[in-house]
Amino acid sequence: MFSEDVASFFRSPVREIFKRVDLNSIYSFAGGYPSADTFPLDEIRKTMSEVISTYGGQAFQYGATQGVMQLREAVAERYGVSVERVQITSSSQQGIDVCTRVLVDPGDVILTSSPSYLGALQSFRSYRADIRGVAHMNDIDSFREAYVQVIEQVLSEGKKIKFLYMIPDFQNPSGESLTFGERKMLVELARRYGFLIVEDSPYRELRYEGEDIPTMYSIDPDIVIHLGSFSKIFAPGFRLGWAIAHPEILDKIYVCKQSLDLCPPVFDQYVAAEFLRSGRLDANLSRSIGLYKGKRDLLLSLLEKYMPRGVRWTHPEGGLFLFLTMPEGFDAVKFYDTALDAGVAYVAGEFFHPDGSGKNTMRMNFSFMTEEKITEGVQLLARLLRAEIVDN
Amino acid sequence: MFSEDVASFFRSPVREIFKRVDLNSIYSFAGGYPSADTFPLDEIRKTMSEVISTYGGQAFQYGATQGVMQLREAVAERYGVSVERVQITSSSQQGIDVCTRVLVDPGDVILTSSPSYLGALQSFRSYRADIRGVAHMNDIDSFREAYVQVIEQVLSEGKKIKFLYMIPDFQNPSGESLTFGERKMLVELARRYGFLIVEDSPYRELRYEGEDIPTMYSIDPDIVIHLGSFSKIFAPGFRLGWAIAHPEILDKIYVCKQSLDLCPPVFDQYVAAEFLRSGRLDANLSRSIGLYKGKRDLLLSLLEKYMPRGVRWTHPEGGLFLFLTMPEGFDAVKFYDTALDAGVAYVAGEFFHPDGSGKNTMRMNFSFMTEEKITEGVQLLARLLRAEIVDN
Repeated sequence: MFSEDVASFFRSPVREIFKRVDLNSIYSFAGGYPSADTFPLDEIRKTMSEVISTYGGQAFQYGATQGVMQLREAVAERYGVSVERVQITSSSQQGIDVCTRVLVDPGDVILTSSPSYLGALQSFRSYRADIRGVAHMNDIDSFREAYVQVIEQVLSEGKKIKFLYMIPDFQNPSGESLTFGERKMLVELARRYGFLIVEDSPYRELRYEGEDIPTMYSIDPDIVIHLGSFSKIFAPGFRLGWAIAHPEILDKIYVCKQSLDLCPPVFDQYVAAEFLRSGRLDANLSRSIGLYKGKRDLLLSLLEKYMPRGVRWTHPEGGLFLFLTMPEGFDAVKFYDTALDAGVAYVAGEFFHPDGSGKNTMRMNFSFMTEEKITEGVQLLARLLRAEIVDN
Repeated sequence: MFSEDVASFFRSPVREIFKRVDLNSIYSFAGGYPSADTFPLDEIRKTMSEVISTYGGQAFQYGATQGVMQLREAVAERYGVSVERVQITSSSQQGIDVCTRVLVDPGDVILTSSPSYLGALQSFRSYRADIRGVAHMNDIDSFREAYVQVIEQVLSEGKKIKFLYMIPDFQNPSGESLTFGERKMLVELARRYGFLIVEDSPYRELRYEGEDIPTMYSIDPDIVIHLGSFSKIFAPGFRLGWAIAHPEILDKIYVCKQSLDLCPPVFDQYVAAEFLRSGRLDANLSRSIGLYKGKRDLLLSLLEKYMPRGVRWTHPEGGLFLFLTMPEGFDAVKFYDTALDAGVAYVAGEFFHPDGSGKNTMRMNFSFMTEEKITEGVQLLARLLRAEIVDN
């Protein structure tokens, strides 16, 4: 009865955890949720009222498929691109999905980092793409060589590489960023071998230390599709993101979007545009950055203090996540039952690995919980891990 | 570079007209827009404020993929189904698209009425479906026979029929409804030949005369997927609809939706749920029905008065559209230039016909414009048509 794609669908293990437990009743390092404390309710209420007064019925009518012009202009200005290159998406997840839809046929290859964002892997698999993951390496020559090897292997199989999917800023799940040199190197490979790059950067504006690194899009705006999101800097409940790309690519995304959902949510777009224009978004973003930096620092110090020997973790300069590696032999999926029963949730790292490796890894989110709950949660998780690791 | 699907994408001619002219500066019978006069701005503003007070940050956080429970429950109650059978969609266009995605492989057959909804045809074509249209016939035996002939033809070609797409209530574009006998007959054919029915019913609640006819879903809830929309009864700018279906089908839609956009817009869902619960939606719907009935009656009387001989039209009991048939040889696409230059817009009927027939037909919307503009617009259109039809 169902289409062939359906056999390749897989359920988000994150969303399955959310079905199993109430996030608010446990210690949850699982989701990629911003803290609800960062949503400026009074300012949102005020902005909504202003939007209704300014735009009246237009704010509730059908809108343009490309998005509300005020929002496209605000995004274009923020990113220094022309408005013709901006498509508003109904979430940046839709951005990922629609890029895959317009670029990938079953069996085509998508290159990704390994680990990579679960929702992207879900979308890629649903189109029956052949996903090839490449682990990060600190030495850029070895890193380049690893990509070249995979690319040459794919070409020797007679397959087409459609795009490289990258989250260069504070990656989900690892929290790590690509250096400028690494970004340039990957863009050069894309040029040389003739594939596109989908640069997914929802965390870019959440930097807690260090200097901004130019986007991959800025290195080559003709072959990089840049995806952004309001979900981490404003409110995920609005489901708004954007795609910035060469007009020829954007045109296919636009026509596809007509039949996907006609247009993004209109009222939400006016509110987001007004939040940007008025400077409220930036003011709120500063507050969020302060809050999240504190939580990241706290989490790092707690891990240092409580984690058993043999557990390692990344030190992200921004974003919402860090990534833990336990000793070889540890199985983070098996460990779910112990953890959830005791009241603490995380996401097992193997789900982020296209080849199912990384069984001894897990992703921890530090944005969602209060500092108090982070503290108690780490102590609990560390106690459970110590028992597990020492036992084995 | 692009996927094979892309070659089958086609641009919505309606949205292309909107790009060419400003709807507010001309007489537009083109869109399927509700009147912005029906959006109860003060009540929306009040409801939004209540939602923020009641739910706080939760209204702006990520939500469940199936939709916000309060809204699922309100839809379930309104339609007398269990909440497990309700999936909130990010527009009913998404409902159509996701049904096609989970059911149809390239070359699979979708049966539709001819004419049928353009956005559905767009979606079906984008998945490279083989669309077979069947014209409506007033005699039910001939109508049944026409379907059986097409079905037998498809089966003789060794192809699979995945579903029948139907808009039984005040169809877009014709404005006509299926009788209860016709609905039963089509459900029986679906059972006999083993295909599903996608029942798309965004206009169902906009009835201006006559009695409600049971949904096709109520005739067989196991094989009919019912799609509904808030766009015609509340506000299209919220982009919210619903799918009601057998849990096994709904589960595939749910998993697909995870990778499409994670969840529908959350704040908008809380507002819609509160609008339903408080009775505000029904009160507003009564007002809308009164308004649209007046516009329909006006349009029918104007057509009677001004249209040249040889032009026929449907008499819809509800919805937003009626359908005009001009004498053979008239070409409604060619006539665009004359009409748009003179300042009046419609949609040419051939775009609604899967086989490109119906060149002498056009769709007229009566919900969007004021009564004054409808009056002037019909007079203008009739004058242009008279010149064209007499000239030829």
